[in-house]
Amino acid sequence: MDLSFFADKLSAGLTQLHYGDQPTALYEPIRYIMGLGGKRIRPLLTLLGAHLFTDDLDPIIKPALATEVFHNFTLLHDDIMDQAPLRRGQPTVHEKWNANVAILSGDVMLVRAYELFLDVRPELLPQVLRRFSQTAAEVCEGQQWDMNFETESEVSIEQYLDMIRLKTAVLLGFALELGALLGGSTQEDADHLRQFGTDIGLAFQLRDDLLDVYGDAATFGKRVGGDIVSDKKTFLLLTAQAQANPAQRAELARYIGQPVTDTAAKVEAVRAIYDELAIRSQTEALINTYFQDALHHLERVAAPTDRKEPLRLLALQLMERES
Amino acid sequence: MDLSFFADKLSAGLTQLHYGDQPTALYEPIRYIMGLGGKRIRPLLTLLGAHLFTDDLDPIIKPALATEVFHNFTLLHDDIMDQAPLRRGQPTVHEKWNANVAILSGDVMLVRAYELFLDVRPELLPQVLRRFSQTAAEVCEGQQWDMNFETESEVSIEQYLDMIRLKTAVLLGFALELGALLGGSTQEDADHLRQFGTDIGLAFQLRDDLLDVYGDAATFGKRVGGDIVSDKKTFLLLTAQAQANPAQRAELARYIGQPVTDTAAKVEAVRAIYDELAIRSQTEALINTYFQDALHHLERVAAPTDRKEPLRLLALQLMERES
Repeated sequence: MDLSFFADKLSAGLTQLHYGDQPTALYEPIRYIMGLGGKRIRPLLTLLGAHLFTDDLDPIIKPALATEVFHNFTLLHDDIMDQAPLRRGQPTVHEKWNANVAILSGDVMLVRAYELFLDVRPELLPQVLRRFSQTAAEVCEGQQWDMNFETESEVSIEQYLDMIRLKTAVLLGFALELGALLGGSTQEDADHLRQFGTDIGLAFQLRDDLLDVYGDAATFGKRVGGDIVSDKKTFLLLTAQAQANPAQRAELARYIGQPVTDTAAKVEAVRAIYDELAIRSQTEALINTYFQDALHHLERVAAPTDRKEPLRLLALQLMERES
Repeated sequence: MDLSFFADKLSAGLTQLHYGDQPTALYEPIRYIMGLGGKRIRPLLTLLGAHLFTDDLDPIIKPALATEVFHNFTLLHDDIMDQAPLRRGQPTVHEKWNANVAILSGDVMLVRAYELFLDVRPELLPQVLRRFSQTAAEVCEGQQWDMNFETESEVSIEQYLDMIRLKTAVLLGFALELGALLGGSTQEDADHLRQFGTDIGLAFQLRDDLLDVYGDAATFGKRVGGDIVSDKKTFLLLTAQAQANPAQRAELARYIGQPVTDTAAKVEAVRAIYDELAIRSQTEALINTYFQDALHHLERVAAPTDRKEPLRLLALQLMERES
């Protein structure tokens, strides 16, 4: 059973979601952002997690999509906060409508995400919603740390990794844990799958940081070097700053946090220092560490090896992706 | 048992709520807005609704407070949208911090509101959360209609009443329904209490509209005439516009929707037309209709009359309030 089997189930489920009708200014933006596409990784992880333990996937579609609706809610609100003009190459909701519409549509998306869990078997519902709520709050915490870091002069690598864990990884972990619980797994297996997902999430975000600097502009889809131009404190920059010799430190300080008009020169100069310090291979090594740790947790899950294959495959795709 | 018995229970419960610690920029605004006070009407209604059927109120404190956290979340986000500088006489969160902090703190408040329901008995949880989610979405719909009406030239009285029903009344109705369900009532009694609460909510909002024009500046707390100055399409204005003769219509049109420098003269002129048309007594008559309808629903609830007394008293206080 390949990934497209599960992806097709999700696509069909997505088209059947009903967010609401009136007023259109509230509900149209939800249909818009949900229709912009994306890889639907989170609900895919939930289905694949459940499929380790059950063939009865239909009751799991709606709760699986809850994490997708929640994820898109966070994108909608994050885009307001980041004043982002584009999302998946299209105007963001606050650009196409306005910030007020984006705030309120996002709010109702969070409500709809909770509603998608309510058909879960009553005996599982409190645990599922407790874990979802904890995860949702953590994602908000991650976003707040991310915003804090923009104006903080000293951010440690540990703090950065904790931020991306909260902002990105815990939701991937929850998506898998959810699938496991709904599929009828033991708590131990659900915990292993959550850790698998969290590791994959950390590796995924580090891969994103790497692609920003070393990606191919044609396939990456975003402007290469955007993080460097905006002085974003990524794992790459923080590692370079920590390991730079005095000359490299001075060169970095000429560009980072300074008003720079020639952004192409800035990207080139910072990347040159990254190259000198072998930042790329260090980042790849950390990605691989998380990836191996993820696989280790997957191995320990008590489920047939062939059922684990789609999960291993998806994780590999996420690690090796070029966009 | 007087109202202060219930209010004291809620105050004690409120001080025990824990929203989170780090990052402080996420959680401090929640403690701030929850600490600004207010009448705590919604959780009070939940406790009074439950007390019709049970003496065991302790398990109901947390879910009762969920509606208070939710209500304050809506205030927080509404204040961003309305660019309001003050809330209960203190700086709003987006003024004291910034809009991004206000968006994100509000988001996590909505999550915390859901969490406060999770100790509800598992057999009741799906129904409670379904009704809460429906209500929460309706409150968002009401806020969107309210914003839409600012720029719409034609708003009917019916549309206005439906807007305040969604934005204000359904949450009061839900608060009572919640209390009834958690207290062990029948669905029929829960429905009567919801309708009692919704009627009280409509009357409450109309009272607010009335106080804006006819309130005593010293006790009302807001600037009297604020709705007139801002051309707010309230029940009073829409009724006046519907009933005005050609001369009155022309006089209204001189002020409403026009740039006016002498706002005191504007308030005086519009109020003079309201007086000519007896808008005050018409509004009071509608408030009384809702109030009587509310009492009618309360009477039909199968609970001891003396247990209903605090609810009747609270409703009366809300009707007769001067602020």
